[in-house]
Amino acid sequence: MKKILSLLSFYLIAVTAIAQTFKSPSGNFEMKFSITEKGEPTYELNYKGKKVINPSKLGLESFGDKPSFYDNFSVVNVNNASFDETWQPVWGESKDIRNHYNEMIVSLTQKDTERIMILRFRLFDDGLGFRYEFPEQKKLTYFAVKEELTQFAMTDDHTAWWIPGDYDTQEYDYTKSQLSEIRHLQESARTDNLSQTGFSNTGVQTSLQLKTSDGIYINLHEAALINYACMHLNLDDKNFVFQSWLTPDANGTKGHLQAPCSTPWRTIIVSDDARDILASNITLNLNEPCKIKDTSWIKPMKYVGVWWEMITGKSDWSYTNDFPSIQIGKTDYSKAKPHGRHGATTSNVKKYIDFAAQHGFDGVLVEGWNIGWEDWFGHSKDFVFDFQTPYPDFDIEDIHRYAKNKGVKMIMHHETSASIRNYERFMDDAYKLMNKYDYPAVKSGYVGDIIPRGENHYSQWINNHYQYAIEKAAEYKIMVNAHEAVRPTGVCRTWPNLIGNESARGTEYQAFGGSKPNHTTVLPFTRLIGGPMDYTPGAFENDISKYNPNNKSWVNTTLVNQLSLYVTMSSPLQMACDFPETYEKYMDAFQFIKDVALDWDKSKYLEAEPGDYVTVARKAKGTDKWFVGNTNGETGRNSIVNFDFLENGKTYIATIYADDKDAHYKTNPQAYHIRKVVVNSNSKLSQYCAPGGGMAISIYPVTDRAQIKGLKKL
Amino acid sequence: MKKILSLLSFYLIAVTAIAQTFKSPSGNFEMKFSITEKGEPTYELNYKGKKVINPSKLGLESFGDKPSFYDNFSVVNVNNASFDETWQPVWGESKDIRNHYNEMIVSLTQKDTERIMILRFRLFDDGLGFRYEFPEQKKLTYFAVKEELTQFAMTDDHTAWWIPGDYDTQEYDYTKSQLSEIRHLQESARTDNLSQTGFSNTGVQTSLQLKTSDGIYINLHEAALINYACMHLNLDDKNFVFQSWLTPDANGTKGHLQAPCSTPWRTIIVSDDARDILASNITLNLNEPCKIKDTSWIKPMKYVGVWWEMITGKSDWSYTNDFPSIQIGKTDYSKAKPHGRHGATTSNVKKYIDFAAQHGFDGVLVEGWNIGWEDWFGHSKDFVFDFQTPYPDFDIEDIHRYAKNKGVKMIMHHETSASIRNYERFMDDAYKLMNKYDYPAVKSGYVGDIIPRGENHYSQWINNHYQYAIEKAAEYKIMVNAHEAVRPTGVCRTWPNLIGNESARGTEYQAFGGSKPNHTTVLPFTRLIGGPMDYTPGAFENDISKYNPNNKSWVNTTLVNQLSLYVTMSSPLQMACDFPETYEKYMDAFQFIKDVALDWDKSKYLEAEPGDYVTVARKAKGTDKWFVGNTNGETGRNSIVNFDFLENGKTYIATIYADDKDAHYKTNPQAYHIRKVVVNSNSKLSQYCAPGGGMAISIYPVTDRAQIKGLKKL
Repeated sequence: MKKILSLLSFYLIAVTAIAQTFKSPSGNFEMKFSITEKGEPTYELNYKGKKVINPSKLGLESFGDKPSFYDNFSVVNVNNASFDETWQPVWGESKDIRNHYNEMIVSLTQKDTERIMILRFRLFDDGLGFRYEFPEQKKLTYFAVKEELTQFAMTDDHTAWWIPGDYDTQEYDYTKSQLSEIRHLQESARTDNLSQTGFSNTGVQTSLQLKTSDGIYINLHEAALINYACMHLNLDDKNFVFQSWLTPDANGTKGHLQAPCSTPWRTIIVSDDARDILASNITLNLNEPCKIKDTSWIKPMKYVGVWWEMITGKSDWSYTNDFPSIQIGKTDYSKAKPHGRHGATTSNVKKYIDFAAQHGFDGVLVEGWNIGWEDWFGHSKDFVFDFQTPYPDFDIEDIHRYAKNKGVKMIMHHETSASIRNYERFMDDAYKLMNKYDYPAVKSGYVGDIIPRGENHYSQWINNHYQYAIEKAAEYKIMVNAHEAVRPTGVCRTWPNLIGNESARGTEYQAFGGSKPNHTTVLPFTRLIGGPMDYTPGAFENDISKYNPNNKSWVNTTLVNQLSLYVTMSSPLQMACDFPETYEKYMDAFQFIKDVALDWDKSKYLEAEPGDYVTVARKAKGTDKWFVGNTNGETGRNSIVNFDFLENGKTYIATIYADDKDAHYKTNPQAYHIRKVVVNSNSKLSQYCAPGGGMAISIYPVTDRAQIKGLKKL
Repeated sequence: MKKILSLLSFYLIAVTAIAQTFKSPSGNFEMKFSITEKGEPTYELNYKGKKVINPSKLGLESFGDKPSFYDNFSVVNVNNASFDETWQPVWGESKDIRNHYNEMIVSLTQKDTERIMILRFRLFDDGLGFRYEFPEQKKLTYFAVKEELTQFAMTDDHTAWWIPGDYDTQEYDYTKSQLSEIRHLQESARTDNLSQTGFSNTGVQTSLQLKTSDGIYINLHEAALINYACMHLNLDDKNFVFQSWLTPDANGTKGHLQAPCSTPWRTIIVSDDARDILASNITLNLNEPCKIKDTSWIKPMKYVGVWWEMITGKSDWSYTNDFPSIQIGKTDYSKAKPHGRHGATTSNVKKYIDFAAQHGFDGVLVEGWNIGWEDWFGHSKDFVFDFQTPYPDFDIEDIHRYAKNKGVKMIMHHETSASIRNYERFMDDAYKLMNKYDYPAVKSGYVGDIIPRGENHYSQWINNHYQYAIEKAAEYKIMVNAHEAVRPTGVCRTWPNLIGNESARGTEYQAFGGSKPNHTTVLPFTRLIGGPMDYTPGAFENDISKYNPNNKSWVNTTLVNQLSLYVTMSSPLQMACDFPETYEKYMDAFQFIKDVALDWDKSKYLEAEPGDYVTVARKAKGTDKWFVGNTNGETGRNSIVNFDFLENGKTYIATIYADDKDAHYKTNPQAYHIRKVVVNSNSKLSQYCAPGGGMAISIYPVTDRAQIKGLKKL
């Protein structure tokens, strides 16, 4: 790791309001900090000479004390620094990540209170990160946050890709609209969810993707959400000013802070090229370096699972209809009559293990293996699961042996039903059980309203739980893939055993009525800014009623689009969600899922426009193989791939998985063709991608000329 | 254990409203159950032919569903039974406890909803217990309780000894007033506390002691408070009708129930002799039998501790003034400068161990041994303690060895600062540390507002925590003495490792400004109905300013009164709270504390009037020794002790610890005399007990005539 830290200047400025400016290393960005006459800190941001953030206020409102933390400030000193290092993530889109920024640290004090607040700004060449810091000081230790008052003042009525602000779910389809339209579209955008709490007609979630009328892309999010409430944004739609809106606890308090402490970073990624938004590493760079010393046990995984059959309704998580309700530890399952629809049976699991072993998958996820599913949801049930007692027809010992023999790892499932305390009570034993039976990873879930009641999924106290689960898992060398937890903010840099999150509308919604066909062209600009998603692609069968006649859902993508997601939605954890018997029917296409890598040396974003398309090429870690994916929106278009990312002078075979000309997500989704061609760094491809379709390419270096015999050049 | 269960009758009655009556085994009590025309279940209670509970409605109000659980009921059947068994508690006031009652089980159903509710009434010869049961059924599983609607309709404007209803504290002085006066006295009765939440001007807590104008004592409380909210009572002071008022959670919900389930028992103890209230075992009898198989490790303990010096302000729990605040795991104490007032130093603890060993005490409690006390309270601090890291000057290993050598056990202290989740996260490790260093018991504390915020000390969810702590402690063979937890309801029968609770205004208040001189004449009628209290008597020095010049508190009892409490406030856990150097000055009186037993074969209540006096004789378990205690109220009086409880024909030496004639809690509290006399079962004593005073007698059988040489007969 290369690390250069240089102190450029350190000087005292007068207490009066003097504006301070500084630039990003390339000079593309210029940020101005100033203090109003009332002592309010403000910032504004220019990109390539254009204003992208109008003067915006900074501060927090606390309970009780006056003044709060948003006015009466004066500048004590301003400290400038520069930083440049390149670091290596345990897994990710690139082998090396450069963390290069100029920094301005503004120390503020309040005359009356003698309290000190520091604003730390970091300007990268792709945007800004800043946070509030409260150093150890005499006149301030504990305080409760009423609201954070960070503004992001837009310069106009931009286009936005947004989901409704909500304390309890992020599982919405994205709406594209002007900022001025959010208020009117809020209600229709707020589709039903098992637990949801809106707060404002102009409330939206981050990461929020915006675009100006002159083609500048702006992305608002946060980094390193640790011991703080999740930030939403509320829009003043007369002035186009977003203001932070934190998730409250049961009392309505939005945070309890103890100096010394810092807020998470607020991030503004900006570019006139949408691809730069996707390539930005600001979120990771603003997190702390890895805190796990030995990371050798953290390994990307490709997996199948006993899951899609429950999601589609073909089978059940539960085991029996014998009991009107379950009391863990009291209900005797041993004499219960199985209802015959239980998915997690030993024999069914073995079928998946066989399939995984046959096709080189690393793992098998099994949901519904543990007792309690008969009435796990919606009852505000505290003691809902024990995370360790299998159903009578799930022989954990036998399955462990069977999987081990086949070289496959089992993936654990811990649905908590959002009963936080109950999960923590069993967490050690649950993780120990995983160690005992060699489960390297757990998918955890937080479906439904939080217990303790009154708390919200994204409040500080509950966020602390998710973090606790990750850190405790690290003690047991367990990887975590948390669903319905707070959306990620790059914490996987610090805790790379956090290999996945859901925290958005995943593939399951294709079996719950369907998602918008362009959904995955937006996710890389929004949800994925914070970290990888366990999106669970691979749904080859569009007509869900073939699995469950009562489920009329339709998967709104082409089959090829499903392939592309393994590349466009980079993740160290990738599922092939569909049934083995379905894959058997499309083995030629399935080959791409078998081949595709999980971890990368580098990534090149080739084409990108939120809502329309994302095309990316990635080099598989430690190899010369490349994979290209394109996910396409509602309109068919030709994707242009310039293969100049390939090594000069080298010859490769590209296997192109493409939509047929008449393919369409709704009417003809399984129309695809596969061709092999010879490519090199001079090759260019123009490939049609259908509505809701896409493209996937695997590119293998030629090691023997015989391999290309009979193949055409592209 | 003798157990007789006979089914007296089982018959169907018509669905129309027919009153059902049944009697207690002796016939003293008659209870009538009926259903109003609206289908509301009601009960009324007669004692010796007099009405003590007027017709009172029964039911619960749930959220959402209509009808709720208080009307539209009809009787399905009535089942009568009788029960008589004698069981042996692990520790307690008697070796044998008779559980003898007649039972009436009324099964109700609602026509429209087909839901079933059972009312189970048990009539003992000293009162009534009843509860609601929701058996497993098709039309009802989960429901949320808006309020329990149990009425206790008084027949008149009785006298009551009450404390204000409160969701977060029971640490109030008792007020004696007519029911009609409660509303006007509520505010003055609500003295300051570190965490308090009142709910009504006529709200009071249980156990509530009442007395009718014709001399009948009525006590209202609950038994077996498990997985339910603590019940308060709210008075309709026009009609003198109490109604249950449960403690809510953060959402205002008062319970989440899952059939099959039962509420706690609601108890009404009644007698025309106040002594019967104290002797009643209804609360214990209505709890489940012991669930701990091997109870050999549960042993009563007499202890001293590094505690009174902190309470009085002579020393501190904390260690240093170096840090404005503490972050556990980050703050480095090793380099901190001690402020010199830390109580839990190795050398100071050894002084207490020496004293304990010298005087035959079982244990030494040490508070302030673990890091975090510098800012433990009032900051809504989640991670406040880790329960395992000692201060640098507390050598846990050395202290362990030292105590072991001296035959003394250390008592652990876990103050949680009411941060419930944090305690649970560390609970296993904390208990393991206790096992490692041979701590048999823990004093836990829940000072301040509950975290998670919005929850209350006595809500269902938090009550479940206290129970969790007890049951988990049992796994580690640890005894629990929980302070600021919900007041006990006889759960110590089921979990006898619950050897103590505070849950009332303890001796510490004598150093916080003082308690009413008659406080301990009320507690046996109120707080102690539910179980033993860690009252921490033994305060010999009344003038607290002698310990800490800044503390002007006065202990409002005579020294002899302090002795008496070891008998009147029966507990398997008894502290001698004062300083060793103080006890050195009063070694003759201290002898009683050394002698007094902790566990009993039998107890005889000799005199009792709430607010005025309680006199009890108890036979030490497995011996022929008796101990008598009298706690006296504000007025001096002669206590009459008839020694007919002694074995006929046997001779004993009684050592009588008595107030001097001019003793007075305020002006002359340390004026006492001790005399030895010979007594037998024919002896009678009339002994003056001073205002705020009392009497203590140890009675040892004469084993050798030489022992009584020179002693006078009483």
